[in-house]
Amino acid sequence: MKSSLATWESLCAASGALRFIDVNLRSVGQVMFQDNPLSGVLFLAAIAWGSFAAGVPQVLFAGLIAVVASTLTAQWLRVDRASLHAGLYGFNGVLVGLALATFLAPGPLLWAYVVLGAAVSVVAMEANASVAKAWSMPALTFPFVLVTWLLLLATYGFAGLAGTALPAAGVVVPFTSMAATRLDAGAFVQATLLSISQVFLKGSVIAALLFLAGLAVNSLAAAIAAVAGAILAVTTAHVLGAESDLVTGGLLGFSPVLTAVALGTVFHRPGLRVAAYAALGTIFTVVAQAAFNVALTPIAIPALTGPFVLVTWMFLLPRLALDKATADPSGS
Amino acid sequence: MKSSLATWESLCAASGALRFIDVNLRSVGQVMFQDNPLSGVLFLAAIAWGSFAAGVPQVLFAGLIAVVASTLTAQWLRVDRASLHAGLYGFNGVLVGLALATFLAPGPLLWAYVVLGAAVSVVAMEANASVAKAWSMPALTFPFVLVTWLLLLATYGFAGLAGTALPAAGVVVPFTSMAATRLDAGAFVQATLLSISQVFLKGSVIAALLFLAGLAVNSLAAAIAAVAGAILAVTTAHVLGAESDLVTGGLLGFSPVLTAVALGTVFHRPGLRVAAYAALGTIFTVVAQAAFNVALTPIAIPALTGPFVLVTWMFLLPRLALDKATADPSGS
Amino acid sequence: MKSSLATWESLCAASGALRFIDVNLRSVGQVMFQDNPLSGVLFLAAIAWGSFAAGVPQVLFAGLIAVVASTLTAQWLRVDRASLHAGLYGFNGVLVGLALATFLAPGPLLWAYVVLGAAVSVVAMEANASVAKAWSMPALTFPFVLVTWLLLLATYGFAGLAGTALPAAGVVVPFTSMAATRLDAGAFVQATLLSISQVFLKGSVIAALLFLAGLAVNSLAAAIAAVAGAILAVTTAHVLGAESDLVTGGLLGFSPVLTAVALGTVFHRPGLRVAAYAALGTIFTVVAQAAFNVALTPIAIPALTGPFVLVTWMFLLPRLALDKATADPSGS
Repeated sequence: MKSSLATWESLCAASGALRFIDVNLRSVGQVMFQDNPLSGVLFLAAIAWGSFAAGVPQVLFAGLIAVVASTLTAQWLRVDRASLHAGLYGFNGVLVGLALATFLAPGPLLWAYVVLGAAVSVVAMEANASVAKAWSMPALTFPFVLVTWLLLLATYGFAGLAGTALPAAGVVVPFTSMAATRLDAGAFVQATLLSISQVFLKGSVIAALLFLAGLAVNSLAAAIAAVAGAILAVTTAHVLGAESDLVTGGLLGFSPVLTAVALGTVFHRPGLRVAAYAALGTIFTVVAQAAFNVALTPIAIPALTGPFVLVTWMFLLPRLALDKATADPSGS
Repeated sequence: MKSSLATWESLCAASGALRFIDVNLRSVGQVMFQDNPLSGVLFLAAIAWGSFAAGVPQVLFAGLIAVVASTLTAQWLRVDRASLHAGLYGFNGVLVGLALATFLAPGPLLWAYVVLGAAVSVVAMEANASVAKAWSMPALTFPFVLVTWLLLLATYGFAGLAGTALPAAGVVVPFTSMAATRLDAGAFVQATLLSISQVFLKGSVIAALLFLAGLAVNSLAAAIAAVAGAILAVTTAHVLGAESDLVTGGLLGFSPVLTAVALGTVFHRPGLRVAAYAALGTIFTVVAQAAFNVALTPIAIPALTGPFVLVTWMFLLPRLALDKATADPSGS
Repeated sequence: MKSSLATWESLCAASGALRFIDVNLRSVGQVMFQDNPLSGVLFLAAIAWGSFAAGVPQVLFAGLIAVVASTLTAQWLRVDRASLHAGLYGFNGVLVGLALATFLAPGPLLWAYVVLGAAVSVVAMEANASVAKAWSMPALTFPFVLVTWLLLLATYGFAGLAGTALPAAGVVVPFTSMAATRLDAGAFVQATLLSISQVFLKGSVIAALLFLAGLAVNSLAAAIAAVAGAILAVTTAHVLGAESDLVTGGLLGFSPVLTAVALGTVFHRPGLRVAAYAALGTIFTVVAQAAFNVALTPIAIPALTGPFVLVTWMFLLPRLALDKATADPSGS
């Protein structure tokens, strides 16, 4: 596979059109931290499957339009070329497109909204990077979260854009049905896989397997971390007594999956201490996801991957010697 | 006009009392980025007209008391002299005074509140500047927004202070009247002008013309950017289907007007690429304004210029080569 | 007393077990900025009294478990040894434990929650310190506030954890009973003392006296500032017309007490200008506390010490020459 990628890279170096395709594919891959066009192809296949299977093909198209709009905006703004080529200016756009088409009704203004959101996500990415580099922090998906929250909130004030899948607004009430909702093996496996596919807002087992394949072709560790994170998240949510539908739909697991991949494989070298630290972060992301769901109830917008961003930043900011054999043994 | 200003400046240099007046006038001018006492005089005239015409003279007085209280606090805290003289420690205070008297009922505690808010706005300005200088970012009107939000929120817990014009609290509901609300020429012009006067919380055409005059005496480009920003904001809000009363009252346009002036003339050299970038920011500020209005519905406070601050920071943080002829052509 | 402390310190230097106890006692002391094990003992006595007197012994146990869990987590993460020994990694944990057991019903998941929260509070502390050191800012109790807010919010989504003392969710409504609620001498003294004990979420006069003793053994200035801050806070809240029960229960005074101690004695050298500045901050913290109470109404969580953190950061960030005799006299 490595030689195929090398061939592809040399083709891209020679052709502006292929390079443009390559950048957009890597952007899709970067949604789960994979700087690899093949990961992007597999992720796109998963998005396509999930969109057509659910009868919402416009979600796929919105994702495609958004990633292209992001890349063109980044070129117009003359951003750093290496980061652009690594797909770092497109992954937020992909998610903006998928989310807007998932939560809003189709129509001409939706497409204008997708292009606007994708373009602004590039500005937000550059702004976020500018702030975060003081602490060598990655932007993660915060530009996507911020821009999409604003765009979705605004639809409640615009008659031209209608929410179709937005959460209902309401006053916070405790969830109390402690009725013994057992999680059998089938439901557990489904919950685990959908926790992975919901990273791209898809509730599909087949899409989940394609996403895992897309991870594995670039990083087997990332694929393992995703599965382990999903299992840990589903278990945690179930033990704490979360609503069964949320658990089996993967809706409390997608942020923890991203936390597990980020803390366990992307920003630390895998190891025992790192795994324990990533597990703590993954468990706390389940709490944060539930907390965001509650906090956003009165304003009726989804949490998106906000909990992942918050917890992963919190766990990356400490400069801990987690993965060094020669770590400072003092302090104990 | 330049020689009059030079004469005025030499008079101020010789008289502490005149310098004090000069600093306060510049503070009023700085609400729209104009370091010019004449802009301050014209802005004050606009505020006076708008306040008396609307039968709320206390709004003018609150603005005057607040700017003086801010300047005195800044002197007591021994802030940087050059920034003080440029009016940078008073413009947030002006806005705090105008906003408190606009949203709250008159009474002895209101005046205590105005002085407290004006004094704290200076501390908030200094704190904001301290944080933001790490990225060479201006504080904009964030100190005003933060301090006023806290003061207004607290009134719901204090029997001594009553809101008279605060928004009603409620659960978020979509705005759906897609009924063809046409925006005729008269309404369009009114919407555009009130978008400018609402920067100072005034809904008056004559005040708007005085504000434009105050901009023009110091910067013709700023006056043009304000009008262009207002037109773009009104058009965007109308196309997206915003509530007609909000559009024609200028209530979705005042933050975008500030964004247009800031991005188009204050922090970049005007030009084609800068204009396109400022236009993108201005359009997105309309979205952000609608979003803030929705998000603040459950807690019943106005968005003030929060959307302007958020979007303008987002668009200023990237270090983009927008206005350089010799900009790096790579990345494309 | 100094020689006893020196003896204790030499015993701790020789014994790992005593050092461990010392670190945990200092952690309790650091809730009110006192790096002194004796302050910790007196604060613990106050917590014990308040918990047993109110019939909630689990609150004391949760505090103890949490501080030990925090210290063990900090050791595992190999944090800076000097900061660990000064109790800086445990005080947030103490508060997490006290708050969770105060607001939630006892049960096996509560204890898991306490340990999780205490462990994550150490990560949050390290993250906060990493960000804040760019401005030489202390983390204050922000790690406690952030982690506890998330944990409490999430309980509304988990059937396994039930809130027993959480505020009721609702839409914001003005508080209007301007009925002359006079504050007689007895009520005033009670309000003042409970403002101090509520720093540790306790409503007990005897606990308040023990807390004051714990402050006084390490810093008489801090004890005086706490009393002065409480008096100022109670007076301000009463004058503004706050609800009598909140005032006499100390619930609008605990954040201002912390602001007064921090601004008046911990981060500045006491003096007249410093006292005036601290008083301004203390008064504004009352406003901020009322504002947070309102803003959090729709999501039904308590403000905790969030208002103290916000206002104290705002007042510490400016680099003002408040306590220097040789301060720059310009700017006036």
